[in-house]
Amino acid sequence: MGTTTPWKQLLLRALESNSHLKHSSFFQFATVGSDGRPSNRTVVFRGFAENSDKIQINTDSRTRKIEELKQCPFAEICWYFTDSWEQFRINGKVDIIDGLNPDPAKHEIREKSWYASSLKSRMQYLGPNPGLPCLNEQPSHDFFLDPSSGPVATFCLLLLDPEQVDYLNLKSNQRIMFTLMRNVNGEHYWNSERTNP
Amino acid sequence: MGTTTPWKQLLLRALESNSHLKHSSFFQFATVGSDGRPSNRTVVFRGFAENSDKIQINTDSRTRKIEELKQCPFAEICWYFTDSWEQFRINGKVDIIDGLNPDPAKHEIREKSWYASSLKSRMQYLGPNPGLPCLNEQPSHDFFLDPSSGPVATFCLLLLDPEQVDYLNLKSNQRIMFTLMRNVNGEHYWNSERTNP
Repeated sequence: MGTTTPWKQLLLRALESNSHLKHSSFFQFATVGSDGRPSNRTVVFRGFAENSDKIQINTDSRTRKIEELKQCPFAEICWYFTDSWEQFRINGKVDIIDGLNPDPAKHEIREKSWYASSLKSRMQYLGPNPGLPCLNEQPSHDFFLDPSSGPVATFCLLLLDPEQVDYLNLKSNQRIMFTLMRNVNGEHYWNSERTNP
Repeated sequence: MGTTTPWKQLLLRALESNSHLKHSSFFQFATVGSDGRPSNRTVVFRGFAENSDKIQINTDSRTRKIEELKQCPFAEICWYFTDSWEQFRINGKVDIIDGLNPDPAKHEIREKSWYASSLKSRMQYLGPNPGLPCLNEQPSHDFFLDPSSGPVATFCLLLLDPEQVDYLNLKSNQRIMFTLMRNVNGEHYWNSERTNP
């Protein structure tokens, strides 16, 4: 019991010890599809939102996950670190922040996340509608993007607010379940419990 | 259009070109939880069921995914190959084959999968109930398992029968959507379509 986030320490340590691997910042992001079936894809970790435990993901507003999250706003991240053999299953509610979001604070973190990503990453948001059939054979790479111009309309920031983190270490065979709880004063705290692997 | 399974060729090639990495046989397996939220965890590829495209996964019948699959029998695999930068999203229905399964053919593939896994893997099915709080501090490793004895009651084989495979190659930036279709004679075939990444 406490007000700190013990799983975040473990996660930051895993990120550091696996940082020599490019794919250590990739994780699988599961949602529930419009047909009620599960949906699962690899996305890139874009850090924590300032002074919070919220996990940032950039995505194109035209992808299917946006539609899915509008119907069922929950997601589970499965993040496996291939060098340290650690797995984090992070479940929580997802906030979708697109260009139409009226909250100035959210508007600002979306802009920050845009400028924090590479020019190559930003270019992707100018491409044809992801998931639709490919119409032209030749890939078109003749977009121009001014490095100083702000986020385009298709750029979308997702913020996952963790409620439960299931940590598994396959080297030590330890598993810990972290659950966000509320005490009698209505304050949140993280409970941790050793669990059978 | 055709009766072959073009995605399987791509998958076998990816498995071969990434075979030097132990984690290349790991993928993330998403289901829908009893609360309607997505669930996501890493599992191990145990090959294709003989003469089929069905993907085999071993699991403990006491894990939450079994309960979940009984309510919603669909899953989506997200399989990312860290060396070749290829992603396969494989969606399909999952058949649960436990010790009580009355079908002799299924009984046989469950048994085969048991003997195909290492003694160390088999031992895990004798451990305490996965996901439940850890009761004793000391891990108990004093089980004995006769290598010739058949599958224990908690050993469960999952068979995922693919209906859609979304293939993405991040090196060539190509994406192909494979969908299982039925022709006018009621026969199945795989349709493939180039899709925007």
